Amino acid sequence: MKASRPLILLTNDDGIHAEGLRYLRMVAEKLGRVTIVAPEAEQSAVGHSITLYDPIKAREVVKDGTFYGHGTSGTPADSVKLALYSILPEPPAMVISGINNGANLGINVLYSGTVSAATEAAILGVPAMAVSLAQKKTPPFPWVLDHIEKLARWVLKKGLPRGVALNVNLPALPPDQVRGFKLTRQGLSKFRESFQERQDPRGNRYYWLSGQATADETDPDVDVVAVQSGYVSVTPLYYDLTAYNCLKENAILLEKL
Amino acid sequence: MKASRPLILLTNDDGIHAEGLRYLRMVAEKLGRVTIVAPEAEQSAVGHSITLYDPIKAREVVKDGTFYGHGTSGTPADSVKLALYSILPEPPAMVISGINNGANLGINVLYSGTVSAATEAAILGVPAMAVSLAQKKTPPFPWVLDHIEKLARWVLKKGLPRGVALNVNLPALPPDQVRGFKLTRQGLSKFRESFQERQDPRGNRYYWLSGQATADETDPDVDVVAVQSGYVSVTPLYYDLTAYNCLKENAILLEKL
Repeated sequence: MKASRPLILLTNDDGIHAEGLRYLRMVAEKLGRVTIVAPEAEQSAVGHSITLYDPIKAREVVKDGTFYGHGTSGTPADSVKLALYSILPEPPAMVISGINNGANLGINVLYSGTVSAATEAAILGVPAMAVSLAQKKTPPFPWVLDHIEKLARWVLKKGLPRGVALNVNLPALPPDQVRGFKLTRQGLSKFRESFQERQDPRGNRYYWLSGQATADETDPDVDVVAVQSGYVSVTPLYYDLTAYNCLKENAILLEKL
Repeated sequence: MKASRPLILLTNDDGIHAEGLRYLRMVAEKLGRVTIVAPEAEQSAVGHSITLYDPIKAREVVKDGTFYGHGTSGTPADSVKLALYSILPEPPAMVISGINNGANLGINVLYSGTVSAATEAAILGVPAMAVSLAQKKTPPFPWVLDHIEKLARWVLKKGLPRGVALNVNLPALPPDQVRGFKLTRQGLSKFRESFQERQDPRGNRYYWLSGQATADETDPDVDVVAVQSGYVSVTPLYYDLTAYNCLKENAILLEKL
């Protein structure tokens, strides 16, 4: 009987030793058989990186005397590819990436290793979701784990349209301030950011990216706003960057070139 | 008079010393004042990575006794951010990323540092294009440079809708086999790929990503097919990953959670 439980692959970008992954594992073990394939080291803001010109190492990570998962030298997207092509004995029923320490909303979706792991799974035909908690909070409120479980159970039961991954962001609020799930779209405002210029002791320039990662969004259907308003934001993502609006208009102009 | 020529920022992911960038500079210098801000080292397949937890170094690179450009320790997206926020004296009229050694088509658009540099510029409100040559070919055929110039001139004159970047891929064909520009959409088929598993002398596992980067696409409006058919593929890209098709359908289901 046990072997027929769905196989669930977990990964993240905070690294295999992250607390968020440990909590995600607790949730996933209620739903099926769990395999972890995740980067050994923290990989935040690696975006949709893949490793082409170096080999990817993988080793079995043991915690408290028992096998915990496969730690890789690759990125989150690498880890998903490696799991699906080489490590897992069968295609998983679902891939979950997280629980990320901090939100992945708006433009940050493009920079997020957590999200790109889910997108990679979706490209490879596996239902997937990326899960992020808006602020660091360990342990997470129990309602956070309940909501992740509920959504994962729904995805396992209903599936997702081919190629679609869910980007899930939970507010770090006590249970009485949470307003439930809200389906959202990705925010598109750029962030207020800047670089601080410094000099090293030898007079060489270097820069730190800094500034507020805040965007000017007001539409309640936008991911950033939904989380600010106390909702669990669920954005369906698809890996097509084509600007369809431009296709017709520009076609005419291109012909004149 | 000279100061009023448009400022054009060039970058790439093959690194500041790449031949492709040198040819791109020749083209861009016909159109305006050129500044190069590009990674010092090759950065292929870094996707839309940004550097958050390390400083980004920048130094002035001299070639043949004259200043050539700013070499950074960052990714292509970092280099664009750094240029726009800190290095350039004014916002550029345009950002061009390339000429990449090898195509950036279909799913590879997600992994491409070349493309993400253009996307980053678009996010920051600057018209941008990523330019890739389908196969290594040095020097490029003169028609390749002519076509890049033509398109860049058109973008400088007409602009692009806010947030849109062009992903341009040129076939490595002699001039008589080229069929002109074609407006395309991003291919969505996954690639045939696999990992080769090996063991190091100490018995540790490691993997090389390998396999054919070919996709099963037949629609002539898809980027991959257009280039295979001898066209210069021009795909307008927008940085919104929302799967709009799913928004209504799933909304109903989410309410039942």
